[in-house]
Amino acid sequence: MHSLTSMLQSLTCPIPLQRYPQVLLAHGGGGSLMRQLIEEMFLATFQPETAWQHDAASLALSGDRLAFTTDSYVVTPLFFPGGNIGSLAVYGTVNDLAMAGARPHYLSLSFILEEGLPMQTLWQVVQSVQAAAEQAQVRIVTGDTKVVDRGKGDGLFINTAGIGTVEQDSFIGPSAIQPGDVVLLSGDLGRHGIAILSAREGLAFETTIESDSAPLAIAVLDLCRQVPVHCLRDLTRGGLASALNEIALSAHQTIQLETNAVLVPEEIQGACELLGLDPLYVANEGRFVAFVPAPAAAAALDCLCQYNPSAQIIGTVTDDQPAQVVLQSPIGTQRILGFLSGEQLPRIC
Amino acid sequence: MHSLTSMLQSLTCPIPLQRYPQVLLAHGGGGSLMRQLIEEMFLATFQPETAWQHDAASLALSGDRLAFTTDSYVVTPLFFPGGNIGSLAVYGTVNDLAMAGARPHYLSLSFILEEGLPMQTLWQVVQSVQAAAEQAQVRIVTGDTKVVDRGKGDGLFINTAGIGTVEQDSFIGPSAIQPGDVVLLSGDLGRHGIAILSAREGLAFETTIESDSAPLAIAVLDLCRQVPVHCLRDLTRGGLASALNEIALSAHQTIQLETNAVLVPEEIQGACELLGLDPLYVANEGRFVAFVPAPAAAAALDCLCQYNPSAQIIGTVTDDQPAQVVLQSPIGTQRILGFLSGEQLPRIC
Repeated sequence: MHSLTSMLQSLTCPIPLQRYPQVLLAHGGGGSLMRQLIEEMFLATFQPETAWQHDAASLALSGDRLAFTTDSYVVTPLFFPGGNIGSLAVYGTVNDLAMAGARPHYLSLSFILEEGLPMQTLWQVVQSVQAAAEQAQVRIVTGDTKVVDRGKGDGLFINTAGIGTVEQDSFIGPSAIQPGDVVLLSGDLGRHGIAILSAREGLAFETTIESDSAPLAIAVLDLCRQVPVHCLRDLTRGGLASALNEIALSAHQTIQLETNAVLVPEEIQGACELLGLDPLYVANEGRFVAFVPAPAAAAALDCLCQYNPSAQIIGTVTDDQPAQVVLQSPIGTQRILGFLSGEQLPRIC
Repeated sequence: MHSLTSMLQSLTCPIPLQRYPQVLLAHGGGGSLMRQLIEEMFLATFQPETAWQHDAASLALSGDRLAFTTDSYVVTPLFFPGGNIGSLAVYGTVNDLAMAGARPHYLSLSFILEEGLPMQTLWQVVQSVQAAAEQAQVRIVTGDTKVVDRGKGDGLFINTAGIGTVEQDSFIGPSAIQPGDVVLLSGDLGRHGIAILSAREGLAFETTIESDSAPLAIAVLDLCRQVPVHCLRDLTRGGLASALNEIALSAHQTIQLETNAVLVPEEIQGACELLGLDPLYVANEGRFVAFVPAPAAAAALDCLCQYNPSAQIIGTVTDDQPAQVVLQSPIGTQRILGFLSGEQLPRIC
């Protein structure tokens, strides 16, 4: 992402910065300044198939099951090691579609800008959105821009909504989980939350920890083609522990985890100890869990390891009640992983 | 809307207000407080067909042309005569779908809440979203909640994205406009902008001016069934003049308007004169223009008058160049309506 960042910074902003160094309220006002912003920055960058200035994009989509999702992004700071709010807004929504077993096709993109935002910042984010959309193989087809007065926002917020097509016949979700299912984790844990926190607080660790923010749809669709998948979930706010708790509650099943199987890199572990955080609850933006029947576990692991060699089998499902998430240590002790009331780190996405 | 407002206020907020009188950062944090908010307030209210806590909604939609749109809503104040940010967020997105000639089916709903927002305010908005969705015959099927720290937002912002199905074969948009087409306006002008401004500034006019905010899809789809429609546009930010300018530029055609045909109610005209505003540029949230071939104009007017007796034929299309919007007075003088650089009134939607 570093080379991407420097590449983006070398492109010239299409809005004349000497005249409009900052976003004005009028850039959201429906007049000629908003029109200039939309045409010269957004349309020129995203080149949607249908004209953005129309009220809605018209899409040709075959298949009779669609997936539809939305997320708003309020991450602070806007730029962090391994990404920024623009790439995050694309990957996050693409990943939500992938977790429904859907192939992502189209995204909407809506900005809430604070008056006074440097125009160059907006331009970098827009370029990053487009680069991320190309990487994730989705098109930005419709959008909106609002500007709020200085002090009523925080630089910029983004909303993306996404449409995908569901490609497999079987339902993917907590209710499909069976006792005996195996739980796989697609990589190591904790990079995104720690990257954000270190950027926010100006903390310097021995090495720069980069966010794991990445599009997951290609790996997930490959997995779904190769093995029967019962449930998928990406590990964003609240991390692995919160995601598994939600699934356990919805599925009315217990999830048993092996402590040693969950990989937390040494540098993340060290940062978490320093900061008093539990890495099992720290947010990730490029990791997911998959629930598959036990006979398919080895093939599933092989598939996931092609995309990330740190993928692991981390646990199994039982019908023990009450439904909860239990962490098993190698010496046989158990720890119940509950819900936190909130996030350890606010505004990580 | 007054009776709706009092009805909404009489329902009890499902989140215990004594314990959580205000929104906390933790309500957006991915833990148990966010889960409570989603389950007890959002899921209980919207009852989406597929479970909200999954990453994406799964939709059964037939037809191979979809319309997709998004808007963020940052209106201030949150409540105004004739509506609030919740009803506006539903009607606005439904109307954008309708303007593409599409039948609205599903909406996403994403909140950006400011820490400290009264929980009761959120509850009133949520109830209003649901009432508006029922009126507009759409389902809220997926959503998201983020909370930003106090001072980094402005109470609450909403994003809605919408999916609809395009029901007619012919393309509806500026490029379909022909010289000789007749322009119809679906009602009087200026109510939304003046309602917002009077609520914001505490202005008291002789009568309370209510926003015209309303869902337009039923009228629009009826019109499309009865006559061939070339272009549709709702008159939000920038009002009638900005919408027609955008269309004239996109269509490379000139739009000739008859001054007397554009109805601005006396109370709106008076408020505009007092405030130094031009009602042709004031925002509306329940008005649209329709371009139809001249032989269909009378039938189109009959249709629109069933929904609003103030509907009028307001002008015609010519191929005069340069493409612009020209206002003809009864005594033969002409005024060119240009683009404003921004909105006369920021944050009206």
